[in-house]
Amino acid sequence: MRTIHVIGIGAGDPDQLTLQAVRALRDTDVFFVLDKGEVKSDLTQVRRDMLATHVPEGTYRVVEARDPERDRTAGGTAYSPAVGDWRSARADIYERLMAEELGEQETGAFLVWGDPALYDSTIGILEEVRARGTVDFAYDVVPGISSVSALVARHRTGLNRVGRPVQITTGRRLAEGFPDGVDDVVVMLDAHQTFRRYADEDMDIFWGAYIGTPDEILVAGPLAEAAPRIERLRAEARERKGWIMDTYLLRRNPDRP
Amino acid sequence: MRTIHVIGIGAGDPDQLTLQAVRALRDTDVFFVLDKGEVKSDLTQVRRDMLATHVPEGTYRVVEARDPERDRTAGGTAYSPAVGDWRSARADIYERLMAEELGEQETGAFLVWGDPALYDSTIGILEEVRARGTVDFAYDVVPGISSVSALVARHRTGLNRVGRPVQITTGRRLAEGFPDGVDDVVVMLDAHQTFRRYADEDMDIFWGAYIGTPDEILVAGPLAEAAPRIERLRAEARERKGWIMDTYLLRRNPDRP
Repeated sequence: MRTIHVIGIGAGDPDQLTLQAVRALRDTDVFFVLDKGEVKSDLTQVRRDMLATHVPEGTYRVVEARDPERDRTAGGTAYSPAVGDWRSARADIYERLMAEELGEQETGAFLVWGDPALYDSTIGILEEVRARGTVDFAYDVVPGISSVSALVARHRTGLNRVGRPVQITTGRRLAEGFPDGVDDVVVMLDAHQTFRRYADEDMDIFWGAYIGTPDEILVAGPLAEAAPRIERLRAEARERKGWIMDTYLLRRNPDRP
Repeated sequence: MRTIHVIGIGAGDPDQLTLQAVRALRDTDVFFVLDKGEVKSDLTQVRRDMLATHVPEGTYRVVEARDPERDRTAGGTAYSPAVGDWRSARADIYERLMAEELGEQETGAFLVWGDPALYDSTIGILEEVRARGTVDFAYDVVPGISSVSALVARHRTGLNRVGRPVQITTGRRLAEGFPDGVDDVVVMLDAHQTFRRYADEDMDIFWGAYIGTPDEILVAGPLAEAAPRIERLRAEARERKGWIMDTYLLRRNPDRP
């Protein structure tokens, strides 16, 4: 039967690969690389370099495909259906790739930035392909260092405070209000710098972009002071590189010494 | 100046070490191993094996110390002060270890199960030692695969659902009620199987113990059905091994196919 590895490859630093991930890379015949056909080709190159470093040349194939465009204009309550359509379109592609590009005894892999468990759709898409029943395959998941772990490691702080909870959420959700019952909130997928809404409150922010790469930018401090600085650095970096990936932790009522 | 690496070594599977962690191990002169003087010596042995596998013999020293006992009888609202006392006692030990066992130009390391950012006290303790100002040192943090990531990878599910938040909390907090505003909750440090309180609700549980080790046990399914099974397996395993480390994800109103 066909086998698929879903491999978390860390948040940007190639050394964040685990030994388990390296083993899974070496066990793979066909790597599927989905290119968004836009500014993310830097990231595609990092993945190709990873393979060149860890897998003997000539032992694997790379199959590239074009990712479907996601309808981000839908917005508001239409978010989930738009994601659903996009996921189905992606499942069509994964299904075709596995049926046509992977031999029945071969092993394929999808390389996922960060951790496949956090705000990534690969597992959900594979489950959708399996439910269709047209291609028979087994799969496993290799956990990776998430951008969340990488962020707080670089800032040398914990995600949670002693005995207290932490929530991981999206910029879209944060725009609806600060989550109830938690004072430590990690925000992912925030294109709108939603932290600015809370600049009047007693919070610290731990922000990072391109974490673990040579372009890494880190800012930490009281939100009111840090917010304008982050805004400026983020705009400059985005202009310079053409894309940005950033994440942050908001810590309400920080216990400053 | 003295340097300290705080190294996340993954959730139990030695192959969950990252390449960055291996590099940090090889860069270390002195490993500090704090033994709880109880049933956890299995875990101490796994760490020693890791060193033997990845670091050339004769290039490092291992310094063992006894962890202070934590007053777990305090309970209730006394939790944080008890933790504070325990942390100070631990800071005393770390301070002494760094001052007496580590040369001024040497590099020491603390090996942390999972990810140093999640429910681990090492960073907080090092900050406390630094605040005392008696030993001068620099430190960095190497992120690790948390038991949370390892759990959901083995269950091949995401932590969050599309566009939705996830909260990570403790058994103690869960006993106070299901968190507001989230339907996906990961519970750590739960010695009392608090999930049983929610067995009447429409939830799925993804549970795991000794994740990534030969003793791994996984159970997933509707909570009402899974809870008694987990309770039995957990009691048996604890009896057999003398200790247990488990984690679980509760998913409310699961969207079952």
